[in-house]
Amino acid sequence: MKKELHFEIAEFQVRLAAVKKEMAKRGIDILLLSEPPNQNYLTGYNAYSFYTPQMVIVALDRAEPIWVGRFMDRISAIMTTYLAEANIRAYPDTYVQSATLSAYDFMADIVKEVGGERARIGVEMGGYYYPARGHLDLTRALPLAEFVDADLLVGWIRLTKSPAEVAIMRQAGQLADAAMQRVIDTVDAGVRECDIAAAIYHQQVSGTTEFGGDYPCCPPDLCIGDRSIAPHAAWTDEALSDSTVVNLELSGCRHRYQVNLARTIVVGKPSAAFQNLAEIAVEALNVGLEAVRPGRTCSEVESAFRQALARHGMEKESRIGYPTGIGFPPASGERTASIRRGDETILQPGMVFHMMPGLWLDNVGITITQSFAVTNSGFEPLTKTPRELFVK
Amino acid sequence: MKKELHFEIAEFQVRLAAVKKEMAKRGIDILLLSEPPNQNYLTGYNAYSFYTPQMVIVALDRAEPIWVGRFMDRISAIMTTYLAEANIRAYPDTYVQSATLSAYDFMADIVKEVGGERARIGVEMGGYYYPARGHLDLTRALPLAEFVDADLLVGWIRLTKSPAEVAIMRQAGQLADAAMQRVIDTVDAGVRECDIAAAIYHQQVSGTTEFGGDYPCCPPDLCIGDRSIAPHAAWTDEALSDSTVVNLELSGCRHRYQVNLARTIVVGKPSAAFQNLAEIAVEALNVGLEAVRPGRTCSEVESAFRQALARHGMEKESRIGYPTGIGFPPASGERTASIRRGDETILQPGMVFHMMPGLWLDNVGITITQSFAVTNSGFEPLTKTPRELFVK
Repeated sequence: MKKELHFEIAEFQVRLAAVKKEMAKRGIDILLLSEPPNQNYLTGYNAYSFYTPQMVIVALDRAEPIWVGRFMDRISAIMTTYLAEANIRAYPDTYVQSATLSAYDFMADIVKEVGGERARIGVEMGGYYYPARGHLDLTRALPLAEFVDADLLVGWIRLTKSPAEVAIMRQAGQLADAAMQRVIDTVDAGVRECDIAAAIYHQQVSGTTEFGGDYPCCPPDLCIGDRSIAPHAAWTDEALSDSTVVNLELSGCRHRYQVNLARTIVVGKPSAAFQNLAEIAVEALNVGLEAVRPGRTCSEVESAFRQALARHGMEKESRIGYPTGIGFPPASGERTASIRRGDETILQPGMVFHMMPGLWLDNVGITITQSFAVTNSGFEPLTKTPRELFVK
Repeated sequence: MKKELHFEIAEFQVRLAAVKKEMAKRGIDILLLSEPPNQNYLTGYNAYSFYTPQMVIVALDRAEPIWVGRFMDRISAIMTTYLAEANIRAYPDTYVQSATLSAYDFMADIVKEVGGERARIGVEMGGYYYPARGHLDLTRALPLAEFVDADLLVGWIRLTKSPAEVAIMRQAGQLADAAMQRVIDTVDAGVRECDIAAAIYHQQVSGTTEFGGDYPCCPPDLCIGDRSIAPHAAWTDEALSDSTVVNLELSGCRHRYQVNLARTIVVGKPSAAFQNLAEIAVEALNVGLEAVRPGRTCSEVESAFRQALARHGMEKESRIGYPTGIGFPPASGERTASIRRGDETILQPGMVFHMMPGLWLDNVGITITQSFAVTNSGFEPLTKTPRELFVK
């Protein structure tokens, strides 16, 4: 069977070594990774199977992680990971949505098999794919083990990307640019909202002539007219009026690495006040970007942005940036650093953020954003769409 | 602000009454609903915001549920629910991915406000959006309350759809048919896998001239060539060869109601053995469908299917059907009844299932499926794509 690996095995080994080093530091013998991006990061595993219980087990004293999942997804594990087949374990379908059997019992048995009955076990308590009942089942099945919260242990390591990862994210950025251009070409009075959304998906996945895209972690945020101030609203079947505002956030996704991009597109003539708001948004965004360099903190970058806004008598309450990288539904944002006041994370080359200082006023919003990688001296934009208000 | 409600308020009240009746039966005073489909079912709420903590609180002695979510999603709650603004509560952005603040503390305060400090509280322990840490935070913030698992309490009520819900699911079925037809038109030797996936997304969302589609709960399962036996594999950039098998599962989604549909499409001439396998699959599927009627159990339907397969000396281990209805990522399948041996759920008019008896042999697979609603006398197919092997 053909292997579909997007990184050298040596890179997976470097990642594993970094995770084990942190485990040792925290006294964790066994790490149970329920988050799909972490499973992908450490093994390469990629299939849309994480809606049933699935785990990657890292034991400090074992050379390879162990993948545990549903029987029918075993083939995907063989194809997409570098793991030896002995380290690919699958539970039968009788465990799926059973009222009597728990896949976490199956996992607990593997933990015991690798000597973890009395281990200190790290679990991802705040993750999307570690349900309350899963934790209960595991702790009941391993009563002598000590469970500790290792949420984001892998996340903080993932924050800094390797050159090979940044190379893939450049491709993801190209996909995002292509999708945004398609929207700019498509948006017009009389076009249905759902047809704009359809064009985005088509371009995201069809990609370029050189390479295609993956499914995105989340649908495009297509906030139109009344809903331009509702950042996560669903689109409708309605046609655009001849005077409306479209606030759009979309992404490009390549080998599960996601780069986000948002722009505001106006149909009709924007008011002078709206145009002015857009100029302030771009100015502050640019000031924020110019403040990026290794050694600075996230908080310092936010402060530069904040001061640029304050010069126009404005302020923004929420954070202005989050890291992205490997993403699976429901969200692409890594849950580690935030570009916001008080976040003392020190920027390092290879970190990737989406700076997204949406300005939401009472009944209008502007969202012009930039994804970038931290370089040795500043930032590298990962998308090339001009930072400006688009008018149709 | 314009309300976007897809059901009469009376229908929401009927749903709420059914939920409260079940709560009373189980002695539950307050129900905390973390699952997005359940939130949508009881309030209408629809926005892609469930990746941050979000809850719908049902108190036995209050007329309306309370929606709790992130501040920026408050507008979506006002627009898409029937709730009074006093029952829409939002936590500030400082709670989002904070290392010190928990949105579950904010929710616990609302539980206290409605008299729940010592209540018996139902939570959805096995849900996708109730993380282990959220449960810990809530139980710590409400030490005098008694927590009980109410997972699927709403799910079992949702299993039987109203006529208004089935009407929307017919539209979802039309979207699925349109997407499948697009694939049948698109698939050919030399076409890239990603371009097939792109065409699916475009059609799912663009929909018909009368109405568009929502984002699906999950990407299409596009299993091609070697990966035709890996049911949840990602697509690639590779072009189809002139002799290959495409196993495809896709969906139509309308107002968050999802109807699924799968077909096998062969490029080139299928072998006689493969054609024969397809005929067996269709025959067994049809026998299964003809066995559907109110009063029968899921297990009886599976048994009819099983016997039809056995006549050809074949058997299938995994379940052959699951219910769908309101769906959000990561999965559309409701986690209640399964059409499988031993499931004694009694079929009733209005229940909707996807019967998906994929036959996976060692290195080939066939997947020809049918979504249907149980009627007063049998089943109503929700998609019209012929149940047959497609050959290009």
